[in-house]
Amino acid sequence: MQELAYVNGNIMPIDEAKVPIEDRGYNFGDAAYEYIASYQGKLFCLEEHLDRLERSMAALSFPGMSREDIRVAILELFKRSGIERAGIYLQISRGVAPRDHAYPEAPQPQFMMTVRPVHEKPPEFRHEGATAITVTDLRWGRCDIKTVQLLANAMAKQQAVQTGVFDAIFVSDTGIVREATSSNVMIVKNGRLATHPLTEQTLPGITRQVILEICNHKKLPVEERFFELDTLYAAEEVFLTGTVTEVLPIVSIDGRTIGDGNVGPAAQELYQALLERIGA
Amino acid sequence: MQELAYVNGNIMPIDEAKVPIEDRGYNFGDAAYEYIASYQGKLFCLEEHLDRLERSMAALSFPGMSREDIRVAILELFKRSGIERAGIYLQISRGVAPRDHAYPEAPQPQFMMTVRPVHEKPPEFRHEGATAITVTDLRWGRCDIKTVQLLANAMAKQQAVQTGVFDAIFVSDTGIVREATSSNVMIVKNGRLATHPLTEQTLPGITRQVILEICNHKKLPVEERFFELDTLYAAEEVFLTGTVTEVLPIVSIDGRTIGDGNVGPAAQELYQALLERIGA
Repeated sequence: MQELAYVNGNIMPIDEAKVPIEDRGYNFGDAAYEYIASYQGKLFCLEEHLDRLERSMAALSFPGMSREDIRVAILELFKRSGIERAGIYLQISRGVAPRDHAYPEAPQPQFMMTVRPVHEKPPEFRHEGATAITVTDLRWGRCDIKTVQLLANAMAKQQAVQTGVFDAIFVSDTGIVREATSSNVMIVKNGRLATHPLTEQTLPGITRQVILEICNHKKLPVEERFFELDTLYAAEEVFLTGTVTEVLPIVSIDGRTIGDGNVGPAAQELYQALLERIGA
Repeated sequence: MQELAYVNGNIMPIDEAKVPIEDRGYNFGDAAYEYIASYQGKLFCLEEHLDRLERSMAALSFPGMSREDIRVAILELFKRSGIERAGIYLQISRGVAPRDHAYPEAPQPQFMMTVRPVHEKPPEFRHEGATAITVTDLRWGRCDIKTVQLLANAMAKQQAVQTGVFDAIFVSDTGIVREATSSNVMIVKNGRLATHPLTEQTLPGITRQVILEICNHKKLPVEERFFELDTLYAAEEVFLTGTVTEVLPIVSIDGRTIGDGNVGPAAQELYQALLERIGA
């Protein structure tokens, strides 16, 4: 079992993996990424992640890359690592060129990955819930594309850490609740599930989609609708969905107790259903 | 005369210069930058660029770095290049760490540079003016910090290139004219100069500041105020200010002729005054 990196076809120790200083990912944040987790030696939702990666690359007008080549590279790195519960971080940038805002003529996309054990959330978060703050959403206008334009996310997460809470939830300057720094947000309000619709302001999360499918299967109605900060505070339940957060209950936001302060039944039910889906 | 790169104290050919794949500049766009130009072997406004770099790094809570060390490194690279009319691109990232949105505990900032001849704007732009389009400003909420969160800028510049014009000017979704993809915007309206005030939505340009000082010296009134797209279209003159654009007249925006379609007197006067200031 070993942590490894991959750069354009070559596998190596992570600390030996390098990219040119004029990679546009480095100078412009001109790169798309994915993070894929495995459970018991099997990658979860690999094809869904590849679908989204293709959409991101198309939205950024990257040159086409063979999906099969990308899949083979992921599977090879995963296998070589021997890590059962792995997190594969994958990043593809537009290419390397002398710095110029306009796109280079015929860029060669740069493809890098790392594989490591998943950094699990603390187990008590599953039983007791986690805490969050809200912050003004300063991110750019295309959060639907999964790019490395992530400085606002990093700043918000750091603010959460310094506040002593788990995560930060972005709220637009007009009061609309968007999502957390690397997870979507779902609430239960008046007994009904709700989450932000798919717009350019939020990421189309894979786990979000899986949860929506589970709800559909269970005949649990979910509204994809906008809701405001007041609604978030007054929700019966709030939880995050994401590849690592899975279904993570949030029991306190900005110091206010959510619901009765305990992990709610919807979060518990959906977390169990997600684990079953993963195991299936 | 040779193009060179610098990485953390070492000078080398640009194509040999690399950074670790887990540099946060690469995975989060967590890096500040500057671009400094020389004229006839002398760097223009070096101290002003260092001032802004320090402000950027402080705004991002980067660990402190010695200004003197940075200055010495810049001057050494510049000297080694032997390029009289050089453009030095300088980027400092927070550091290298396993990917995690929150900041690493004790990061070691990564410092890289390139030096090349300045890619001059076409000479006819100085006599005939250049053209632009406007685009909706999709950038993040801290454009006052000079970071590599530049994908929206790159996309806008590419859209300009594909439209057959020189540059794109960002306009907020409420209609306020912000700046161009790598320059500030200044207009003449009713005989008075105006430019966007310093807020979190625009970059505090060095050339913008030099032009304001020149205007002050010449007793030319300049208003730092918001103005809308209609005002831009109806301006007597529009010009860009920046390290490479210097003072660049824009004579057509979105296919509409600005003023009488010729380079105006204010742009001419300020361009000459800038050249004199540079020569002084």
